[in-house]
Amino acid sequence: MKVEIISTGTELLLGDIVDTNSQYLSQKLNNLGFSVLYKTTVGDNEDRMLEVLNQALPRADIIITTGGLGPTQGDITKEVTAKLAGCEMVLDDLALNMIKERFQKMSYNDMPESNIKQALVPKNSYVLYNNNGTAPGLIVAIDNKIIVNLPGPPHEMKAMFEESLVPYLQKRYGDLGTIHSKVLKTIGLGESWLAEKLQDIISAQSNPTIALYARNNEMIIRLTAKATSKEDAIRLINDMEEKIRLKISDYIYGSDKDTLEAVVGELMISRNMTIALAESCTGGLLSSMITDIPGSSSYLMGSVVSYSNQSKIDFLQVDSEDLAKHGAVSEKVAIQMAKGAAARFKTDIGIGITGVAGPTGATADKPLGLVYIAISMQGKIKCYQHIFNNIRTIVRTRSAKMALVYLLKELKNLEEQT
Amino acid sequence: MKVEIISTGTELLLGDIVDTNSQYLSQKLNNLGFSVLYKTTVGDNEDRMLEVLNQALPRADIIITTGGLGPTQGDITKEVTAKLAGCEMVLDDLALNMIKERFQKMSYNDMPESNIKQALVPKNSYVLYNNNGTAPGLIVAIDNKIIVNLPGPPHEMKAMFEESLVPYLQKRYGDLGTIHSKVLKTIGLGESWLAEKLQDIISAQSNPTIALYARNNEMIIRLTAKATSKEDAIRLINDMEEKIRLKISDYIYGSDKDTLEAVVGELMISRNMTIALAESCTGGLLSSMITDIPGSSSYLMGSVVSYSNQSKIDFLQVDSEDLAKHGAVSEKVAIQMAKGAAARFKTDIGIGITGVAGPTGATADKPLGLVYIAISMQGKIKCYQHIFNNIRTIVRTRSAKMALVYLLKELKNLEEQT
Repeated sequence: MKVEIISTGTELLLGDIVDTNSQYLSQKLNNLGFSVLYKTTVGDNEDRMLEVLNQALPRADIIITTGGLGPTQGDITKEVTAKLAGCEMVLDDLALNMIKERFQKMSYNDMPESNIKQALVPKNSYVLYNNNGTAPGLIVAIDNKIIVNLPGPPHEMKAMFEESLVPYLQKRYGDLGTIHSKVLKTIGLGESWLAEKLQDIISAQSNPTIALYARNNEMIIRLTAKATSKEDAIRLINDMEEKIRLKISDYIYGSDKDTLEAVVGELMISRNMTIALAESCTGGLLSSMITDIPGSSSYLMGSVVSYSNQSKIDFLQVDSEDLAKHGAVSEKVAIQMAKGAAARFKTDIGIGITGVAGPTGATADKPLGLVYIAISMQGKIKCYQHIFNNIRTIVRTRSAKMALVYLLKELKNLEEQT
Repeated sequence: MKVEIISTGTELLLGDIVDTNSQYLSQKLNNLGFSVLYKTTVGDNEDRMLEVLNQALPRADIIITTGGLGPTQGDITKEVTAKLAGCEMVLDDLALNMIKERFQKMSYNDMPESNIKQALVPKNSYVLYNNNGTAPGLIVAIDNKIIVNLPGPPHEMKAMFEESLVPYLQKRYGDLGTIHSKVLKTIGLGESWLAEKLQDIISAQSNPTIALYARNNEMIIRLTAKATSKEDAIRLINDMEEKIRLKISDYIYGSDKDTLEAVVGELMISRNMTIALAESCTGGLLSSMITDIPGSSSYLMGSVVSYSNQSKIDFLQVDSEDLAKHGAVSEKVAIQMAKGAAARFKTDIGIGITGVAGPTGATADKPLGLVYIAISMQGKIKCYQHIFNNIRTIVRTRSAKMALVYLLKELKNLEEQT
């Protein structure tokens, strides 16, 4: 089954935004056994949109568009799709009600008139209702081919794809053989070191294939296997994963959709531990990452962002003499912050982070990117020093991620002891 | 002059990587006065690459490909371009020497045989030498049109574009006038409300054009003007901006690369104000956003992430009876959190945020996404209620952004008073 993805929106042609939707769809569709052979981007222009749809029809079985389902006059994807299919537009009552309800819930007074347009769909289309926004998607059949219109905002598009389109495709096309991928997530090893450690495995790769990428300050290993069944593909991947783990198991924290903060969260719950944070240079970033996980309130009791020296003294019982003598960015202060957080919030674990995030604040003996991360766990203290030689945002992100890495290590050790 | 960008590479169709090259080229080419009307992505397959080139030729004056110039058998872009132009491939001595030198400098011993392929170019092509990698690019003319082959690695592609292709295009096509854009950033108005408020202006648009879109939980207004000089384009945009500001000035917080947190930061400094935060459902996200701005330590004294009820009492002097009576998610508690933060950190401003971020925690009278945002400023208190009907991450992000919007409003009012 051949797929063409058509991303619509003049903003994509102007280069205002990067098209991440088509990447997401490509990855997911390939994993389901569909072959994405072309991707096209076209602006909000009726003639040109019709042209690329007409050009896609003979060469693809499934055409998926994203974008152009909004309430404005510039949003024309549904209308062009209807024209191509020779259907008139009709009002979908359920879609209209969902849009109205959405406006009521959001406590904007009433739905603006212009949103009625979003409830119009080509006659005889299969409507993909939107639980995350106002624009419904839809599927129109033309002979034995289908055109799918998905909304542009990524979180709406992804949810609609997973919840509605995947079940539809699986029902319509059945099992297509499979390409299966697994991503191993690592942290703490740079790209060239990782490549070196895995050199033998990488040179001998055929099926599964192995690809390394840097993403979000982590290194990702993608294993992709082709097989006639998902089970076979998974078996191939598992064998390869085992070989990789033999070389670098210490650096792998999870796979696929795992995030460091979610993996840590699961361990916090299974170990029945509580934690509090004292953040200086990360300014709440670590707290924000941890609390992004649903259910984190069962283990994170709270945090103090102690951006001023006085707040380190007032809230975290940091010793004012140590502050004066060693400075706010020091091992001593990091340790006292970690201990203070655990003591004040009455938790099992406390983490203290202090550093020079930049661009100013560096001195001869405290360079830009110098960060201390202290973990106090049931009275025992460890403190790590890093120099993240980079811009402010990356110093902060790496500091928060490394704190999670150290926390993960402690939580894992705990398992081995018990 | 119409441009089509063709991104080549099977990895793009598999979704292994995001195509940032085409976004970069779109942005740069539009600014130079070229119109990018189509973007196409195709794999490393000769027939399909020929097909998309043939399809681009009648509708574009300039076709720019990226990728497929490497030394492997899978790299076929140059060869397909030569085939289309009816040229044979010839060895370019200068390119070969540059590749050899590159290998010597990089202290790989000698150039592998396979790299000779990279020095082959279509006869009569204009070679774009590569100072940042081994693959030369090239330009082939077909009648009055040109096909440009650029390398795939972004840093090589960008340098070649800037250093070699831009001068070539300017020499060949002369001054094409200019397209200039300005982005107005708004927050607090949904897409349809914004469109409704600007309806007259949008229907009457011609030059500049106006486009609305949602990005990062904000609404963006892009004004794009075409003119013979940059000054004229800027004048057209300024006139239009003035009209827009007459309608929605309260919702515009900045333009182009401004961020809400940076604009707030500048005002905090110019007003000589200090702030402290008390975050519950946002869990440190607002602190993290504010402290992402260099120099924020001069106005943010600190924050408390009071995830547990006890921490609201211990750190922020929230009344335990009010907590029990009204619940943690209530106007009363939000106000006490804001006041407590300002009092404990001794700041001019305190912000308190408490809400139901989900997915659990909602009750009949406290629905998912209910959030209270309180601002205490020099003793005066305001509290706002929102219902962000969405997933956890978005509830958190919108809550933090709206807190910044309210803070911005207070800081602006302050200006008017003084």
